[in-house]
Amino acid sequence: MATPLLSSMFTKLDMLSTSDHSSIVSMNLFVALLCGCIVLGHLLEETRWINETITALLIGLGTGVVILMISKGTNSHILVFSEDLFFIYLLPPIIFNAGFQVKKKQFFRNFITIITFGAIGTLISFCIISVGAMEIFKKMEIGSLDVADYLAIGAIFAATDSVCTLQVLSQDDTPLLYSLVFGEGVVNDATSVVLFNAIQSFDLTHIDHRIALQFMGSFFYLFFSSTLLGVITGLLSAYIIKKLYFGRHSTDREVALMMLMAYLSYMLAELFYLSGILTVFFCGIVMSHYTWHNVTESSRVTTKHAFATLSFVAETFIFVYVGMDALDIEKWRFVSDSPGTSVAVSSILMGLVMIGRAAFVFPLSLLTNLTKKSTSERVSFRQQIIIWWAGLMRGAVSMALAYNQFTGSGHTQLRGNAVMITSTISVVLFSTVVFGLLTKPLISILLPPLKNFRSSSTISSDLGSPKSLLLPLIGSQQNSEADLGGQEPTGQNGIIRPGSLRMLLNAPTHTVHHYWRKFDDSFMRLVFGGRGFVPFVPGSPTERRAHNLNDGT
Amino acid sequence: MATPLLSSMFTKLDMLSTSDHSSIVSMNLFVALLCGCIVLGHLLEETRWINETITALLIGLGTGVVILMISKGTNSHILVFSEDLFFIYLLPPIIFNAGFQVKKKQFFRNFITIITFGAIGTLISFCIISVGAMEIFKKMEIGSLDVADYLAIGAIFAATDSVCTLQVLSQDDTPLLYSLVFGEGVVNDATSVVLFNAIQSFDLTHIDHRIALQFMGSFFYLFFSSTLLGVITGLLSAYIIKKLYFGRHSTDREVALMMLMAYLSYMLAELFYLSGILTVFFCGIVMSHYTWHNVTESSRVTTKHAFATLSFVAETFIFVYVGMDALDIEKWRFVSDSPGTSVAVSSILMGLVMIGRAAFVFPLSLLTNLTKKSTSERVSFRQQIIIWWAGLMRGAVSMALAYNQFTGSGHTQLRGNAVMITSTISVVLFSTVVFGLLTKPLISILLPPLKNFRSSSTISSDLGSPKSLLLPLIGSQQNSEADLGGQEPTGQNGIIRPGSLRMLLNAPTHTVHHYWRKFDDSFMRLVFGGRGFVPFVPGSPTERRAHNLNDGT
Repeated sequence: MATPLLSSMFTKLDMLSTSDHSSIVSMNLFVALLCGCIVLGHLLEETRWINETITALLIGLGTGVVILMISKGTNSHILVFSEDLFFIYLLPPIIFNAGFQVKKKQFFRNFITIITFGAIGTLISFCIISVGAMEIFKKMEIGSLDVADYLAIGAIFAATDSVCTLQVLSQDDTPLLYSLVFGEGVVNDATSVVLFNAIQSFDLTHIDHRIALQFMGSFFYLFFSSTLLGVITGLLSAYIIKKLYFGRHSTDREVALMMLMAYLSYMLAELFYLSGILTVFFCGIVMSHYTWHNVTESSRVTTKHAFATLSFVAETFIFVYVGMDALDIEKWRFVSDSPGTSVAVSSILMGLVMIGRAAFVFPLSLLTNLTKKSTSERVSFRQQIIIWWAGLMRGAVSMALAYNQFTGSGHTQLRGNAVMITSTISVVLFSTVVFGLLTKPLISILLPPLKNFRSSSTISSDLGSPKSLLLPLIGSQQNSEADLGGQEPTGQNGIIRPGSLRMLLNAPTHTVHHYWRKFDDSFMRLVFGGRGFVPFVPGSPTERRAHNLNDGT
Repeated sequence: MATPLLSSMFTKLDMLSTSDHSSIVSMNLFVALLCGCIVLGHLLEETRWINETITALLIGLGTGVVILMISKGTNSHILVFSEDLFFIYLLPPIIFNAGFQVKKKQFFRNFITIITFGAIGTLISFCIISVGAMEIFKKMEIGSLDVADYLAIGAIFAATDSVCTLQVLSQDDTPLLYSLVFGEGVVNDATSVVLFNAIQSFDLTHIDHRIALQFMGSFFYLFFSSTLLGVITGLLSAYIIKKLYFGRHSTDREVALMMLMAYLSYMLAELFYLSGILTVFFCGIVMSHYTWHNVTESSRVTTKHAFATLSFVAETFIFVYVGMDALDIEKWRFVSDSPGTSVAVSSILMGLVMIGRAAFVFPLSLLTNLTKKSTSERVSFRQQIIIWWAGLMRGAVSMALAYNQFTGSGHTQLRGNAVMITSTISVVLFSTVVFGLLTKPLISILLPPLKNFRSSSTISSDLGSPKSLLLPLIGSQQNSEADLGGQEPTGQNGIIRPGSLRMLLNAPTHTVHHYWRKFDDSFMRLVFGGRGFVPFVPGSPTERRAHNLNDGT
């Protein structure tokens, strides 16, 4: 039965006990560090190089050093990275929020490109890293690693860090790049996790066509069923809120229901052994398209900012945590005998990551460019460089997978495992700090602000919101509308004047999108609500104004 | 060092693992149950009898029964109530939100009464229940209980359930009653916990004057230092946000900082062995008075609703949890031999609770009435009955304390302990369901809607907000202002026209309040911000309108 385990779960939480005074000390330390990160991140915001991710990593590292010094280096287990804390509590709010705030128009316009990059690209990258690692490391005598380990290395280092990407690229300044890199990141995370699970469950001593086919089948099954589950949960939330709450809205229940159902979608995916990341991402998209429009105005503001805040706190937590974890002595003990090996392994892995990514970004960009008719939709070479660069960072997903693979009973007793763990930490720290630091300057060099990406962003849905998450003092209402509601200006136009110039111009290239919009207007919105469902509140002229602005473009 | 314990903490969270599939099942079940509670609670809202607390309890009980039937009664540990899950994760958001949303004017006007009821009243109640239990249970042969156990019983059953009270009384319909009963509940919780800790730590074999004085001293120390810590943390958050964020607000950072600092105040109190409940309550009050006015309008809407939502989910969680926990077979095994004894013990305890509460509500009301000059401020006999009645419910605090006292190694091996645990569960279920069900009708009988309590609510700060947490479709902005900002209408008036009629009328009875207001206006607001700090946003005429309404009264 399930319940004894729920009971055991709570008994475990029990250990974080009031009586256990030292864990209170730790929690205080951690909450205080998070506050510190927020304040510092704010103070450093105007600098060109540092971002919040790097601040959090450095604060985590610094705290780790201080603790190591206070305990006089004897404290070998400063922090143990828990993949489950990460996968169950921290990742879902981040990915959900990404789906909730993503500009859906951009995302769906580039859907094919994103899937190609995320699925096929990750497979290419995985193959190159696995084969490369196998060839090079076998000659280096770094310890006993078998075929499954090498394949796992491929999967671990094929996982782009979508969390860090979100902080480095701006949805408003470079919408196409953002949606490509971020969308790819989500699909890529899912692909890596699926690959990783497949490696652990399939018998890899004899790889033949049958297993490869099974593998492909299981991947597509996972992709579609996860997406479907997310869409269904999202639609269910929209339906419940529309049916039950219409006319007598209660803000707190609405917000609570949205939060709980979003989390439920993730947990359901885990229950059915699907990809929770994909599920919660699509749940976020559906919720922002339907559910969000069925709730009161206060609920809209609240959910928008509350989800963003939760995601922000979870991100900061992850990076402080990764920073502190990096100093666990136990892991570095084996490596300290031969620091040269560790540096060599880390550098080789970093190189393989760069080659693996280059091997699919440029060829696949070429391919997708061939399918586009208008030049404005093609991905230029400079943009390709940024896509390649922005996906080089490795983060918490890589850490979590590496811990899963290389720490059997929690610690690294074998030399080979210890080397792989420390190398993963090195690659994560190096790529996040160095590549993270250089991304903003790189973008401003390759795409000067004046003639940057706007041209290829088909419709300027990001009208009037200079920074989506950093709302200025004035007109927050307007922004909240423009961000979450304003992605579908033609939706409104589509009803009012279907023959408008913009529709005609877009129609030939986007027929699927056009039919979807028709279906959405005539059926989906009737059942599930969505934009325009709730009559606009007279007391919110800002909202009206935002509409007029959208219509006027 | 602290860190190994943080590490162990995360290792424990680790057990709620993705690989541990059954705990995923349990989490799904729990999240789905919470969703069910919200939907059912909404559907049943218009009925006169049922409230959300009872719905959640019954759903929990029902699920417990179903699980018991599926496991064919063999499953002895359905759920173990964890006092730490309760005290560390669920209680803080509830109490913080209570402080954040409480009508401060009402609360501070009745401050002396609240303290008298909460501290002295609880002590009276504690003595009566302890002595009564000692006298009666000694003759009943229910098992081995010593003096410390009887005193613990007194502390356990002296703890009013402030969570349930919040749901039964309405801040807007009966503001005086709400602030008295709820304020008392918070102080009472703190008193009970302090009493309980004192019983466990003091040597009780010889009680003399010295120990009694020490005990009093420690109580006052706890009360003042906890309050001070809450106020300091709140002011710090106001200062940081005012200093750093002025002019370039970023909503998510503000919200994150408010949340984290509120939680930090609770954890700091636990760190210094203070009463976290009091600390986080006063932190909530200070944050709503200063910090809340220093943030952007979106942040205000977000924090108001996000805190209310978190509190709402935590409340629902607690009651589902208590309901499911009530069916743990292990506890009932000892009792099943002699069901008569269990019923008798529960009834006696319930009786003692009622007598203990009557013994302080009526005499203390008489006393405080003597100090009031105007009749409108006195507490009528009917109101006294409601105060008595509304504080009879026992909830999760009682459960948590009972588990702490009577389950040594997690389970109840002694007959006496088993009887006390089951009796506590019985009293909690009975009082919550039966008294909870009868409270709404009782209030409407004793205080008919037309001539209800408004007369004694000095200034109608609750203008135009029929139900603070259930915002209607229209004018949510206005409400959010009226609720959180509108408590201080004379604050605005105080600046503009200090000689106004209302000020003069109120001045003689509220000189302390008057001087505080002057100090607040001339010093505190300059340093820490607060109402009027952020220039009003032109795009929010609703806010202006709310002011005009307030001024017009």
